[in-house]
Amino acid sequence: MRKILVIGAGKSSSSLISYLLDKSSIENLHIIVADVSLEIAKSKVKNHLNGSAISLDIFNEVERKKAIQNSDIVISMLPAHLHFSVAKDCLHFKKNMVTASYISKEMKSLNEEAIKNNLIFMNEIGLDPGIDHMSAMQVIDSIRNKGGKMLLFESFTGGLVAPESDDNLWNYKFTWNPRNVILAGHGGAAKFIQEGTYKYIPYQKLFRRTEIIKIDGYGKFEVYANRDSLNYRSIYGLDDILTLYRGTVRRVGFARAWNIFVQLGMTDDSYTMENSENMSYRDFTNSFLAYNPNDSVELKLRYYLKIDQDDIIWEKLVELDLFNPNKKVGLKNATPAQILEKILKDSWTLKEDDKDMIVMQHLFGYELNGKKQQIESSMVCIGDNQTYTAMAKTVGLPLAMATLKILNGEITTPGVQLPIKKEVYEPILKELKEYGIIFKEKTVPYLGYNPNNVIS
Amino acid sequence: MRKILVIGAGKSSSSLISYLLDKSSIENLHIIVADVSLEIAKSKVKNHLNGSAISLDIFNEVERKKAIQNSDIVISMLPAHLHFSVAKDCLHFKKNMVTASYISKEMKSLNEEAIKNNLIFMNEIGLDPGIDHMSAMQVIDSIRNKGGKMLLFESFTGGLVAPESDDNLWNYKFTWNPRNVILAGHGGAAKFIQEGTYKYIPYQKLFRRTEIIKIDGYGKFEVYANRDSLNYRSIYGLDDILTLYRGTVRRVGFARAWNIFVQLGMTDDSYTMENSENMSYRDFTNSFLAYNPNDSVELKLRYYLKIDQDDIIWEKLVELDLFNPNKKVGLKNATPAQILEKILKDSWTLKEDDKDMIVMQHLFGYELNGKKQQIESSMVCIGDNQTYTAMAKTVGLPLAMATLKILNGEITTPGVQLPIKKEVYEPILKELKEYGIIFKEKTVPYLGYNPNNVIS
Repeated sequence: MRKILVIGAGKSSSSLISYLLDKSSIENLHIIVADVSLEIAKSKVKNHLNGSAISLDIFNEVERKKAIQNSDIVISMLPAHLHFSVAKDCLHFKKNMVTASYISKEMKSLNEEAIKNNLIFMNEIGLDPGIDHMSAMQVIDSIRNKGGKMLLFESFTGGLVAPESDDNLWNYKFTWNPRNVILAGHGGAAKFIQEGTYKYIPYQKLFRRTEIIKIDGYGKFEVYANRDSLNYRSIYGLDDILTLYRGTVRRVGFARAWNIFVQLGMTDDSYTMENSENMSYRDFTNSFLAYNPNDSVELKLRYYLKIDQDDIIWEKLVELDLFNPNKKVGLKNATPAQILEKILKDSWTLKEDDKDMIVMQHLFGYELNGKKQQIESSMVCIGDNQTYTAMAKTVGLPLAMATLKILNGEITTPGVQLPIKKEVYEPILKELKEYGIIFKEKTVPYLGYNPNNVIS
Repeated sequence: MRKILVIGAGKSSSSLISYLLDKSSIENLHIIVADVSLEIAKSKVKNHLNGSAISLDIFNEVERKKAIQNSDIVISMLPAHLHFSVAKDCLHFKKNMVTASYISKEMKSLNEEAIKNNLIFMNEIGLDPGIDHMSAMQVIDSIRNKGGKMLLFESFTGGLVAPESDDNLWNYKFTWNPRNVILAGHGGAAKFIQEGTYKYIPYQKLFRRTEIIKIDGYGKFEVYANRDSLNYRSIYGLDDILTLYRGTVRRVGFARAWNIFVQLGMTDDSYTMENSENMSYRDFTNSFLAYNPNDSVELKLRYYLKIDQDDIIWEKLVELDLFNPNKKVGLKNATPAQILEKILKDSWTLKEDDKDMIVMQHLFGYELNGKKQQIESSMVCIGDNQTYTAMAKTVGLPLAMATLKILNGEITTPGVQLPIKKEVYEPILKELKEYGIIFKEKTVPYLGYNPNNVIS
């Protein structure tokens, strides 16, 4: 039996562990699921014959080393900053390792030693990063192999609520870490290239510079720019590309309403508010508006942000109970962002029967034989339920598949890797299709950067 | 002869040194002006019989200690973070010390030892902080002495161009460190209290939440909130006050136009722009606008920020040459804020004959004998020329006066101090009048917080 150690058995591990258990008999695997909570680990193993659950405190060096030594390959589902100690143990005990996280500087620093020991440390092989790399590189490589020259690459990803569970005005529910949603766009201007020109969008305008995209069968979505559009320029071999843009997908109208929170200052995470615990939702909203003894909080907000009375934005705010004088915040020394998260969780938490949805679309513009062409590649994945969510499937399945393929010697390039090589993306994208994670490609006219896609 | 050591002979030391030299014969003083540039030190001493210029590298411990040991009192005009080493030497050689800077934590930590040695380390005794403390505390103490209870304190200060030199559409020129003007409002939401309610303004709205004030003889001004309105609440003894607000003064219309820079992202200092050196002013502006092959930078900007063609904001932008394709930025690896500073310096640098102006106004609302009343206290100071600027006078004269009064034993309270005690503010405010720095007080109806003063 070949032993796979999965460290971390949270929500995002369910599809990963299921896949491995399902393959365990035919592939001769034993899956050891380790978590700080034995109960959570057990809930994932479900008494499977080829699985076992163990309690593991990652900060306990003896326990950690023992578990790693006792495995053939390690999957770390820990928070990103905890991968490094696992990676060092893997180096020491000569084990391959797989994560879904961005390659940190620390992780990167192990590259030479990993190569020397012929070890594979595969990272960024979840959804985003992960499926985005693989699906993009497959098309980019095929264009290049035909002799094409890349002109444009745009890539959009979003975690949303499935249409059948979409029952609020924002067409949005939290399907992942809410805090990351609240803080999206913080930390600096978004930077990208359009037709050879560097463009910068400051936070205060990020949600007013969206683009509209369409996905066949699912209608229109909007995209706001990520901070890091140029991060993979060199890695993808796109140093000379004219247009490079990455963005986050929401349903149309989300960003325009979210901008209200930005303008009010409700997404600020840099200071704590006075007396936040005893504040009502209405008090919270009023904190960002000028004092006026004669006007309501409602009218002050409308006037301040110039919201017409029949604007749907208004209904969106009301739906969140932002003006409720009776609901208390109940959080001590909280930042505006923490309070907003609390308020949004009241409205945007998935119900028991709700399903989530992952949407990804890439646009590839290129020149081949003197002709400009464009490929649009789209993927939509809908969750089965609240355990096998679209997020758990799209993050966990590529991780699991990569792990098995490394174990089986199908993926062989050693070092600190990300999945941009054909030996990785080709078999994994092929197998993902069996699980309904399918990119639909179509050829569209080359638009270059079409100004009609811009909303001011 | 009593020796006064002035460390730092930059622009803001001119009135300070002049005052001390003027008093030197009658007061039996010798003024030692120390600067890293002997030439600059000499230019301030002007061969005065009771003055001498020395070259001093503040990082040279031997030189520094020697100069301090050889003096009776030390004025540090160094950048704020360099005061501490001077202060430690002053403690060691038992010298009093005076600065115009905010009391740092490090400085504060010397309080006990200063008291033990009966030394006075007087800080925050320039303009702002300085004259603001003294003029505010004089009125607050007089209200309290009559048995009044403070309800409201608002305080506004600005460094502007004098009316006779005001010849641009912004009614503004740089009279102090331009970088601080560009970065005003950075670093967190502005926080204040209005009628007992805490209010927060995020950076992206700071310049759209101005108040209008009037100063007799000088017309209307506007005020935007400082970050630190509550800093002196306890120090002034205003813990129970209902309204507490501090702000920065500009001519009306400045903030609405400045907001364009904020919205575009031009005041961002957190990242460097690609190829900033070879960028034209027009390229810089275009970096913050969406790509469009068919529209001009001008129209894109107007449309993006909804500027009507006949809006004066537009003329203000054009006046700055923001759309000039021929003027090069010429700064390597520059941040947007650094580039904006360069562009604004082209237009907002004082000409040789230009004069600057300092404006300060306090509003004191209080209840006395069951009646609510309000005092408005205003000061305007206009510079004599480019050497004896309003800024140099208002910063340097209180510093110089305090130094002499400490030397003469008129100010006696030891410790790390700021000028909020009567023994300090009364004689200094009185003497400042002789130099034209005069607060005009008048009684006005108590407005509390008058909503009509608010511009959305």
